[in-house]
Formats: sequence, structure tokens, C-alpha cells
Amino acid sequence: MVNPIKKEALYEGKAKIVYKTSEEGLFIQHFKDEVTAFNKVKFAQITDKGALCSEISSILMEALNKTIKTHFVKRLNEREQLVKSVKIIPLEVVVRNTIAGSFAKSFGLEVGKHLKSPLVEFFYKKDELNDPVISPNQIVCLEIATKKELEQIEDLALKVNSVILPIFAKAGLILVDFKIEVGLDKDGTIIVADEISPDTCRLWDKESKQPLDKDVFRKDLGDISITYKEVLERLKSAI
Amino acid sequence: MVNPIKKEALYEGKAKIVYKTSEEGLFIQHFKDEVTAFNKVKFAQITDKGALCSEISSILMEALNKTIKTHFVKRLNEREQLVKSVKIIPLEVVVRNTIAGSFAKSFGLEVGKHLKSPLVEFFYKKDELNDPVISPNQIVCLEIATKKELEQIEDLALKVNSVILPIFAKAGLILVDFKIEVGLDKDGTIIVADEISPDTCRLWDKESKQPLDKDVFRKDLGDISITYKEVLERLKSAI
Repeated sequence: MVNPIKKEALYEGKAKIVYKTSEEGLFIQHFKDEVTAFNKVKFAQITDKGALCSEISSILMEALNKTIKTHFVKRLNEREQLVKSVKIIPLEVVVRNTIAGSFAKSFGLEVGKHLKSPLVEFFYKKDELNDPVISPNQIVCLEIATKKELEQIEDLALKVNSVILPIFAKAGLILVDFKIEVGLDKDGTIIVADEISPDTCRLWDKESKQPLDKDVFRKDLGDISITYKEVLERLKSAI
Repeated sequence: MVNPIKKEALYEGKAKIVYKTSEEGLFIQHFKDEVTAFNKVKFAQITDKGALCSEISSILMEALNKTIKTHFVKRLNEREQLVKSVKIIPLEVVVRNTIAGSFAKSFGLEVGKHLKSPLVEFFYKKDELNDPVISPNQIVCLEIATKKELEQIEDLALKVNSVILPIFAKAGLILVDFKIEVGLDKDGTIIVADEISPDTCRLWDKESKQPLDKDVFRKDLGDISITYKEVLERLKSAI
């Protein structure tokens, strides 16, 4: 297949740009070096961050593509991926395996406790509202997704977890939690979109329990280009 | 039936005291004149507030008792009610018919828009955490209630709405939203507990859309003893 030609940008987000292409049904997703946290209050430009996230996400999306539908088609170059066009559902779908982050904070829970079963949470993707937590009833009420779609989304998120958790485990990493974005492909099927990378996962070293993810940036714990490179190397030997 | 004798206080909350009685399975619920808002940041003592809330709640609970299980047995005097003993589930169960309050604020929605179907929300009753919003998945994960119990609670809350909404409508009041508390009775059945009053409902005059509830106190719009008295008089003529 000849690669389609990149056309105008459709959308520019905090960490990525999505371009239309000469082929309907296909987009090009470009990974930027920008890293932001706390809804853009903290931000930086980290050399190679985009390339590292793109490569890590490619490895995980390829693993998912064996059993789950994702938007990922292939890598085009260091920072660009060919992806299926999707109509994004404005939700951040979070899966938690271990207590951390906002879940620990909101309910005064001990960080690091492993959950009996994975927990799925939803946040409404709206920068000006600071991505508020949203309940399934509210999602249906605000017509963001139907009840049936929501069940499919939750099921999809748990399936993603069941694929990537053992891959990270093999790489000596605890997948504490992660978020995915989902959307409708041209047939109206709900598929995984966006990226899965240390920007969107909370990853701890299996032994030291030290973070190897965006928390390194959030909490000024080190150089995330070195951290993300280590995650990539570990994943490559685990696959 | 001879009324049981009041024994020691079991629990004192912001607006009520619950006493044990000489009879196992029965409590006495005492309504205080204290009114608080914004998690006790604002508070006052309003003469007759307790008696008014007790009488209003009695009218509504009696109406509910015809088709739904509640803890309410009977009024003993102005401020005291005989109620069944319940093991409270630490949730505030909110039902919304019209957009207002935290739902409007969190999602940037227009206040006053009527919802197509009632919306049920849950908050975790924990003062020190400021009663955070909690999702059904989180409730199950934290073992606050099982999935089956949660379905029963949601069903119960919607049934309460379907009984009290037309009563308020007959009284010229729009039931914008309200919260209930629920608990397990001695047989393990989930029943309605606590109170239903202008302290726990958002009520607007049908014509003027002016609040006739605790928002009068929250927003310094007038004397809540006069407001609550009007709600009581309207309800008495509607029943």
C-alpha cells in the first residue's frame, strides 16, 4: 500500500497533531515533544519525547490489534503514525489496578494498595472545565454516549488492561493505572484511539516502586527522556 | 402501641440526633434547629426549623409508606419521630429533575433546564473528605454497597421521586432535585431513612422559579422559617 499524503491539520492537542490525508478514512497522528501537566499549568519541551511515546504506543497498539480494534495502522516515521479516522467520544476512560492519583486523593485511600478487580472511571474531556469526573448516568443524561455504548467502552477498557498489564509485567513494570480514549470508526464500531504511553499510564518499577512515567515530570523526579527510553527498552525485550 | 422510652443518643449529626429506645429495632429521631451549609462553613440556629422539617418530612414519608419502605413510623411530638432502626449506607443519593447546583457547575450547564429523565448521582458521606462525588464502580470497589444493592438503591431513589414530585407539583412547587439517605433494616432490606424536607430538596415556586428551600439560607435570600412554613402550608393543602 502506498502511504497517503498528509493534508491539513484537523486538530492540535497538548501532545499531538492529527492531520487529514489524501485517503478518506485515514489520518496521520504526529507526536510532539511538548509535555504538560495539571491541565497545562506545568509544561516543557523534551527532546525525543514525541518519538519515544510514538514508538512505545506503536508496540502496545500492535499487541492490542491482535484481539482488540484500535485506530493504529502503522508507523510512518519517528513521530508519525497512520491511523484510522475516528469520531472521538469526549471521555477519558481510566482503568486502575492499584490505588494512586485522584482516586487515592478523593477518598483518602492508601497509595499502592492493589485492587481486587480493575476499576473503570470516566472523565469528561473538556479543558475549560478541567476534565471533571463524570458518572455513567451523567454521560447518558448529557448524551455523550448511550448506555449500550458505555458498556462497550467499559468492556473495551478492561480488555486493553488484560492485554497490556502482562506485557508491562514482563517488562518489570507495574501498570498502576492508565487512560485511553475511544471513538467510533467509519462503521460505527467503538475502537481504541489516541495513544498508550508513559504519558497516559502510571508505571512503577516492579522492585523499587519508583515511577517510570509522566509523574517523573509532574513531581520533578528526573529527566523523562531517560525514563521513557528505559520503558521503551524494557518493552522491546518483553515483546 | 405504647411508645418506647428514649435512651442514650446513638449519633448526633448536623441537623438531627438519633436516640436508641427501650425497644430494639426502633430509634427516636430528633430534629434540631441548626442549619448548616457548605459543609458547616456557614451555620445558624433558626427557631422552629427543626419542627418544620420534621412535620414536612412526616407528610412525605407517610405518603411514601403507602408504596415504598421507609424508616418512618410516626411523629411523637413537634421535633421527634419514631423510626425503624437502620444501618445507614454512607451515601447521599441525589435525584435531579432539573439542572442546578453542582451538576450545573461541574459541567458548565444552564441552570433550570428540565431533564428528559431523572438523573441519579451518588456522593460519599464523609465530612472530612467534603462528601465527594462517587461513581457506582467506585462504590462497589470500596465495598460501600454491592452492585445489586446499588441497583436497588437507584430504583428506590427513582420511586421516591415518582411519589414526591407530583405532591410538590400539586403544592405549586418544582422539585428540582433532592437527596435521600438509605440503610438496611433488620431484615436486610434497603429502605429510605433520614428526612425529606426543604433542607434536603431543591424546591422552586412553579411560577416565579424562586427557591423555597435551604438555598434561601445558602444565598441569604430571606428567613427560612417563613419559607419552610410556606412549604408546609402548601403541602398540607396538596395532600
